Amino acid sequence: MIVEMRKQAPSEEINEVVLRAKSLGFSVQLNLGTDKTVIAILGGNTGQLSTDMFAVFPGVESVTRIMKPYKLASREFKPENTIVKVGKVEIGNKKITVMAGPCAVENIKQLEAAAKSVIDSGATILRGGAYKPRTSPFSFQGLEKVGLELLAEIKKKYQIPVVTEVVDPHAVELVAQYADILQVGTRNMQNFSLLTELGHIKHPVILKRGLANTVTEWLTAADYLLAGGNNNVILCERGIRTFEDSVRFSMDISSIAVIKKFSHLPIIVDPSHAAGHYSYVPAIARAAIAAGADGLLIEVHPNPKEALVDGLQSLTPSDFKRLMGEIKAIAEALGRSL
Amino acid sequence: MIVEMRKQAPSEEINEVVLRAKSLGFSVQLNLGTDKTVIAILGGNTGQLSTDMFAVFPGVESVTRIMKPYKLASREFKPENTIVKVGKVEIGNKKITVMAGPCAVENIKQLEAAAKSVIDSGATILRGGAYKPRTSPFSFQGLEKVGLELLAEIKKKYQIPVVTEVVDPHAVELVAQYADILQVGTRNMQNFSLLTELGHIKHPVILKRGLANTVTEWLTAADYLLAGGNNNVILCERGIRTFEDSVRFSMDISSIAVIKKFSHLPIIVDPSHAAGHYSYVPAIARAAIAAGADGLLIEVHPNPKEALVDGLQSLTPSDFKRLMGEIKAIAEALGRSL
Amino acid sequence: MIVEMRKQAPSEEINEVVLRAKSLGFSVQLNLGTDKTVIAILGGNTGQLSTDMFAVFPGVESVTRIMKPYKLASREFKPENTIVKVGKVEIGNKKITVMAGPCAVENIKQLEAAAKSVIDSGATILRGGAYKPRTSPFSFQGLEKVGLELLAEIKKKYQIPVVTEVVDPHAVELVAQYADILQVGTRNMQNFSLLTELGHIKHPVILKRGLANTVTEWLTAADYLLAGGNNNVILCERGIRTFEDSVRFSMDISSIAVIKKFSHLPIIVDPSHAAGHYSYVPAIARAAIAAGADGLLIEVHPNPKEALVDGLQSLTPSDFKRLMGEIKAIAEALGRSL
Amino acid sequence: MIVEMRKQAPSEEINEVVLRAKSLGFSVQLNLGTDKTVIAILGGNTGQLSTDMFAVFPGVESVTRIMKPYKLASREFKPENTIVKVGKVEIGNKKITVMAGPCAVENIKQLEAAAKSVIDSGATILRGGAYKPRTSPFSFQGLEKVGLELLAEIKKKYQIPVVTEVVDPHAVELVAQYADILQVGTRNMQNFSLLTELGHIKHPVILKRGLANTVTEWLTAADYLLAGGNNNVILCERGIRTFEDSVRFSMDISSIAVIKKFSHLPIIVDPSHAAGHYSYVPAIARAAIAAGADGLLIEVHPNPKEALVDGLQSLTPSDFKRLMGEIKAIAEALGRSL
Repeated sequence: MIVEMRKQAPSEEINEVVLRAKSLGFSVQLNLGTDKTVIAILGGNTGQLSTDMFAVFPGVESVTRIMKPYKLASREFKPENTIVKVGKVEIGNKKITVMAGPCAVENIKQLEAAAKSVIDSGATILRGGAYKPRTSPFSFQGLEKVGLELLAEIKKKYQIPVVTEVVDPHAVELVAQYADILQVGTRNMQNFSLLTELGHIKHPVILKRGLANTVTEWLTAADYLLAGGNNNVILCERGIRTFEDSVRFSMDISSIAVIKKFSHLPIIVDPSHAAGHYSYVPAIARAAIAAGADGLLIEVHPNPKEALVDGLQSLTPSDFKRLMGEIKAIAEALGRSL
Repeated sequence: MIVEMRKQAPSEEINEVVLRAKSLGFSVQLNLGTDKTVIAILGGNTGQLSTDMFAVFPGVESVTRIMKPYKLASREFKPENTIVKVGKVEIGNKKITVMAGPCAVENIKQLEAAAKSVIDSGATILRGGAYKPRTSPFSFQGLEKVGLELLAEIKKKYQIPVVTEVVDPHAVELVAQYADILQVGTRNMQNFSLLTELGHIKHPVILKRGLANTVTEWLTAADYLLAGGNNNVILCERGIRTFEDSVRFSMDISSIAVIKKFSHLPIIVDPSHAAGHYSYVPAIARAAIAAGADGLLIEVHPNPKEALVDGLQSLTPSDFKRLMGEIKAIAEALGRSL
Repeated sequence: MIVEMRKQAPSEEINEVVLRAKSLGFSVQLNLGTDKTVIAILGGNTGQLSTDMFAVFPGVESVTRIMKPYKLASREFKPENTIVKVGKVEIGNKKITVMAGPCAVENIKQLEAAAKSVIDSGATILRGGAYKPRTSPFSFQGLEKVGLELLAEIKKKYQIPVVTEVVDPHAVELVAQYADILQVGTRNMQNFSLLTELGHIKHPVILKRGLANTVTEWLTAADYLLAGGNNNVILCERGIRTFEDSVRFSMDISSIAVIKKFSHLPIIVDPSHAAGHYSYVPAIARAAIAAGADGLLIEVHPNPKEALVDGLQSLTPSDFKRLMGEIKAIAEALGRSL
Repeated sequence: MIVEMRKQAPSEEINEVVLRAKSLGFSVQLNLGTDKTVIAILGGNTGQLSTDMFAVFPGVESVTRIMKPYKLASREFKPENTIVKVGKVEIGNKKITVMAGPCAVENIKQLEAAAKSVIDSGATILRGGAYKPRTSPFSFQGLEKVGLELLAEIKKKYQIPVVTEVVDPHAVELVAQYADILQVGTRNMQNFSLLTELGHIKHPVILKRGLANTVTEWLTAADYLLAGGNNNVILCERGIRTFEDSVRFSMDISSIAVIKKFSHLPIIVDPSHAAGHYSYVPAIARAAIAAGADGLLIEVHPNPKEALVDGLQSLTPSDFKRLMGEIKAIAEALGRSL
């Protein structure tokens, strides 16, 4: 941590900072400039220290953190890639993983039709929402426990792992009885009660990026899961909130390379929620694989016009099939496979 | 809702949209342009209808919602201002309400010192966090139940209502036993499980704006509380995430006037979390009152240098006292009082 | 254009809006709801009409534009793709165009080394800045006219078209004597004096997206060039300003598909300025081609460590060569070529 | 400047950075951590040095600038406030300066009516646009030279200084013949050709903040004017682009306090362009004065319904009169005057 004192700060002010740093067990190196003093605070865990702890002292002009605030999710902590296993599927390995299915589980007929078509096109994990966090209280909120049961039925019949969202810390145990992967939605990335609960199970967790969170905050949220003992963490980029209004969220395509550089965790991409419109989903999905993502989470509905939730961003089975062909071609062009 | 068809869309495509609208009980008016058809879908509750429901049809180029998605929080629904009562304090009335105290309850000595100083300067509600949502799992997470007990002790001794944050839907009942006002933090504005639970109690709730949520989404989240039957909702603007990095969050000062125009709910402002630095807190607080806010939520710490959380953005008791003098002067200049 | 009146607006207020619309030559259709009136204003050029013209009337609650504000750049105006020709290079056709070279022209040796290496790897247009818009007045501002002469020398020797930036409307004529393509930088996207001047020449123009401009504003800026009679417009996406700070700008990968849907103009991508760091450039470049971009604009420097400007985001010749291999593989996987 | 090397970077990589720093005339201090080395680069002008210069070296993980990139605009460079004089008006002194008038000069009758009403309410500078930068080429572009002449006529008749925008570097001389203050619009904040030209005159310049520029970039742009020798610089905050869509731009109210802390230049606020709607202008204007702004730039039109440009955000003379009363009351409450 680097503390910059204001111009001609008196030595008492400098000493106060130095003493505080030493009292916390850090070593200190003074860089006395001609008119400004810069104090370097050194030690193993300055990343977890708040910059405020020093910025609050009189005479301090700025405090800059050199260490990252996340620890367990960092590649410095664990250099080799994490591979998350779900049955025979390995997320984060050479093979691209595609998870697909409807936004919300509506009924057994819809779910089965969706499952059949996505399996047929090469998806290896089925997605489907039972608990739906909705912006308005007057919107359809999901089938809840009945939705979980329908997922379990299709999972058994087609022998495919399922992923579904959990929104309440006290529902983690219930959802874990039915699902293979639990998903944390974008609005819950910093729901620390929920993260803490998910840290105590062993099921793989998909941690979606908060719609206005930095990559650094995202990896720090992953630390909540890892600190609890759950190492099966899959990151999911799903677009961020910007001023651009032609799509629902702006896909932050660069975050894939940033995550690969600073973290060992696998990263997948949800092009459906970023786009908000089916016509933009294929371009974003192809870009994600070309940029190095380990997989995709895509909404497919047998009949988008009748969908209860997010029909507009759902692909039809035939559009999904065509996209899977393109994904396969790009994966192979880059030495991976589908 | 206005559906714009693409240029020269065939009549079958137009009919499909019209039929769907009629099947949902809406009336329809066709505006046949020379090369584009625009369909107006009319009826009482189109605000709660998703635009996707029509955008998904072939031939549709865009769908525009005319009605707002929120309902109970709107001024159209309830034209007169809501005034929330907490003991003798009336939030949303002519008198400005200032809630102040430390970010986190640390111990009885700190809390009492803070309480004494803020009461002395004219604050009428004491704030203090017992449950702290922290970005990193390695940071101090609050005293939890012990913190609530300390708040209750000071509340009784000084006869001042207290406000504290609740982060878990299953803790609502517990927190409501100790606190007079429950606060929903910025990261939980769309934690719908929590909002649903808070809709079932009668305690006033402060709903902080999500750091990347629009005013429209904020009022729609307020609908969760109101729909549950809790009318004691206080909105709290606390800054939004932007590209600017000289402050922690950018105070959206305009939202005060926007809320006053479109909603009947009272609105207060938290200058401390927006600023992130004590030196900017007074300017933002003064601006909020000048813009028409009904109150302030300010962090004051007897000794910011020793604060466990957010010391940098906390005012000292003497800085707070000076600010209260300025707030009083501005309030009176505009025909209100402190 | 759709004008929504407030609840129970009196008929005089409605009439005032109707009369204004008719006086401007538009036809009007009234949608009288039970408590709200919605007025549809119809006619050929409502896209170029300001919504303010009606929003300013008493009783008006909101005004929504249905038509897009841009016209000549729209696919409705010209359905078939525009292909811009520069010598033998066709931008916007099946073949991907890669423009590469140093950020700034520094001297003949540096420029020639860069040119040789990018040509060797398959680039067909050479880039190099002579006029550099710099954030600080104390930074290197480019070689200016000398830089243009060096570009012309290398262009002749290697028979490769060159692209360079123009920053002053009165320099357009001079720059056009040396360069084959003129580039408008991100900070000048709405420099309308410059755009007007560039509309009067025939040279192809690369119009970079403003760092905080929407796709709609970008296409409306392109209208300035097209309205002047210059049809050789190439759009260039280069990242937008967001809250994310791990990269310099957030590449808006979705804009490629949005542009392809709404405009006939070719679009290329500049991964270098978005990334700000060489290690992220290849991932963004691959994503751009996978998403459907028609080309790339990439910074390559023979010795990035010695670069006077933006060395950090420049690829070395060997990194560029490897990237070109990946671009070729992706292009071919999607039925295009390099 | 602080260079952080990656974990276990070999000493050759460290040496390469040290040598480069020394070759540029800086002194260097090494902080050898247990597994990471941090290099402090010290010297007088590291603020004007690009971080890239070191980040480009192998083994470097991050480079952090401690010094600010701007120099002449900083309070460190000039501790006492700058007061800009225009006739008898002093901008940046105890008295608040209000500049008001129509967005665009339309004709002598409109301009005179506006001038009379704003002078009557206490404005001391008249604003009016002759050159209008417009998003679309099909919109009214201003009266240009005729507009300047009308401004000059009213200026003489009412003995009031006038401010108008200049958009082309080659028009600076012409505009300076008519106007007392020249304004740089938000889209030209980084039009460095224009800034350079304005640095060479002595007329006061209003430098509007770019709609997506940080405070740091804004002050660095001011350095262009100051470096040219023009010390009469007035900053103008006018709102930034964010995701919020209820107003045209989000007024960054905190920037006033940030500017006052880091710069000696006076700052005024334009509430009209931020709001985009007359109903929000008074709240923003009051907030600006309460936050410490030195003045306001407000659009007033004798008949907003007939305005050719931006009528929606213009106040009527009577609304402006009422606002001036509020501004006066707030100014006096805070020890200033109007």
